[in-house]
Amino acid sequence: MPVGGGEAALIRRHFHALTAQRDGVELGVGDDAALLDVAADGRLAACCDTLVAGVHFPADIPPEALGHRVLAVNLSDLAAVGARPAWALLSVTLPEPDRAWLERFSAGFKTLADRYGVALVGGDTTHGPTAVSVTALGWVSDAMGLRRSGARPGDGIWVTGTLGDAARGLELWQGRDGDTVSGDPAYLVGRLFRPEPRLAAGQALLDTATSAIDISDGLAADLARVLEESGVGATLSLPALPRSPAFLAEGGTLRHALYGGDDYELCLTLPPSVEAEEMARLGERLMTPLTRVGTVEATPGLRGEDADGAVSALEPEGYDHFAGGA
Amino acid sequence: MPVGGGEAALIRRHFHALTAQRDGVELGVGDDAALLDVAADGRLAACCDTLVAGVHFPADIPPEALGHRVLAVNLSDLAAVGARPAWALLSVTLPEPDRAWLERFSAGFKTLADRYGVALVGGDTTHGPTAVSVTALGWVSDAMGLRRSGARPGDGIWVTGTLGDAARGLELWQGRDGDTVSGDPAYLVGRLFRPEPRLAAGQALLDTATSAIDISDGLAADLARVLEESGVGATLSLPALPRSPAFLAEGGTLRHALYGGDDYELCLTLPPSVEAEEMARLGERLMTPLTRVGTVEATPGLRGEDADGAVSALEPEGYDHFAGGA
Repeated sequence: MPVGGGEAALIRRHFHALTAQRDGVELGVGDDAALLDVAADGRLAACCDTLVAGVHFPADIPPEALGHRVLAVNLSDLAAVGARPAWALLSVTLPEPDRAWLERFSAGFKTLADRYGVALVGGDTTHGPTAVSVTALGWVSDAMGLRRSGARPGDGIWVTGTLGDAARGLELWQGRDGDTVSGDPAYLVGRLFRPEPRLAAGQALLDTATSAIDISDGLAADLARVLEESGVGATLSLPALPRSPAFLAEGGTLRHALYGGDDYELCLTLPPSVEAEEMARLGERLMTPLTRVGTVEATPGLRGEDADGAVSALEPEGYDHFAGGA
Repeated sequence: MPVGGGEAALIRRHFHALTAQRDGVELGVGDDAALLDVAADGRLAACCDTLVAGVHFPADIPPEALGHRVLAVNLSDLAAVGARPAWALLSVTLPEPDRAWLERFSAGFKTLADRYGVALVGGDTTHGPTAVSVTALGWVSDAMGLRRSGARPGDGIWVTGTLGDAARGLELWQGRDGDTVSGDPAYLVGRLFRPEPRLAAGQALLDTATSAIDISDGLAADLARVLEESGVGATLSLPALPRSPAFLAEGGTLRHALYGGDDYELCLTLPPSVEAEEMARLGERLMTPLTRVGTVEATPGLRGEDADGAVSALEPEGYDHFAGGA
């Protein structure tokens, strides 16, 4: 019983209708995080993501990895609005209390929380099918934050890190057949299980980028959201999509890089005035490569240009949590 | 595989360990809501509660009631720290997208949100076993807020509204056998499905009360938490527990009033200097009765005094989400 437009449409239809008019909501439902006017010198950023066993993560994920992952996907949303994280609330639902599981889960959560100075300030533990949910709160120094709606024709499209690793990692994890995963496959599985939120990149580009989104459902699907919100189109240079050595060695394809979710890299649009050299220096400072992968255009739609210069329309397909999968 | 102390101990063990030291956390995990220092003239309050089908609500709950309830239980947590609600984030997990269900759910949520000026500022809709989760954010004008830890010997113990209605209502709902519920039973079921968060009472008593908690798991269980956090004991006057006419007419017992959860009334401790007449006037103004039900004492433990003056120890049993039930 799919609903037209899947999850995004459901959110728009039902959650926008819930949004009471209230002063101070600079950015509410529909972007990666809410921006709330709480002080003259900053905005509170808040976001919420739930991960369900068998849907958003394999049931046999190591608990440490899940603890990391549920916080990371929320910090990634904060990164996508240029926020500095501050606090988190955590809800854990388990079929039965399992001390060993919770200890391992907590260790994974805490390691990442400590790295970014995030304090857990609320929590709820309930009985039920395994699921975890985090609300992350943070601060944005700029009144606008990074939004999905600001991309303009001529802007360059940039991504952090490499693409497709997590999608290929999931296949390798699911196909491991009890074997230990090591080497390149372990790197790719690590990209799936322990995504690194690109907080420094989001903050560094807060004043420069015209739009930003984190890549949770695949570059094509997430970029399509930016294009729709901004009323523009784009052409991606397919050979330019950054791919890791492990990804290339382990059979990663263009399809993984374009449509694979779960990498939690950022996709940003930057004005034409931004120089490649400037971004290369920033990438070095952040120890995260920044790669230009395309250009925003006035013509709506998403297109891909291959190595021969042939341009064709790209389906913005990706991972839709209501369409099933993962 | 129950863990000693149930949910509370699990939260203490695992979530306190996660709490990074961070300036500005006035009150973190372990109380009803977190208080976060964000401005000189107030504190941000944040809380999170998840409701799972078949555990926290009957699977056949009307969707409107669930929409109301998941927000109400979170606003009740804000009430218990004396906060004014401001924003909420909502996560909905459903086995499949169901437009009719979401519309009805949203209508229930929105009616309550509008009543208290709450803006939904974030959301997530995911595929999985039915569960809903809300994070509520609000403001406390007082630097301390209402906490669980401030009860002192000699304080009066007060509750808002009436007790046991929701517990008896659940029994009537489950036993209705397809019949329509009306009259007194409908009133009691309404208390279960549409609890009214006592926000005005919490805010009105912010400067007076020495402690507060909302009654989600039953008066005995929730008061026991206050006593433990405050290092004190108490004796309840059992005949004084406020019971509604519908509750008495429909077979409600002392057991429901003492151990039944889900009423979401507030339990507050007030200094001996507070006069009964003053509270009666406040109750009239709030249109919510305020009833004194006992006294805080130095001797640890929870006791009950019956109509004949006989005092006996009360088990602080109640609803533990990891012990099952409801």
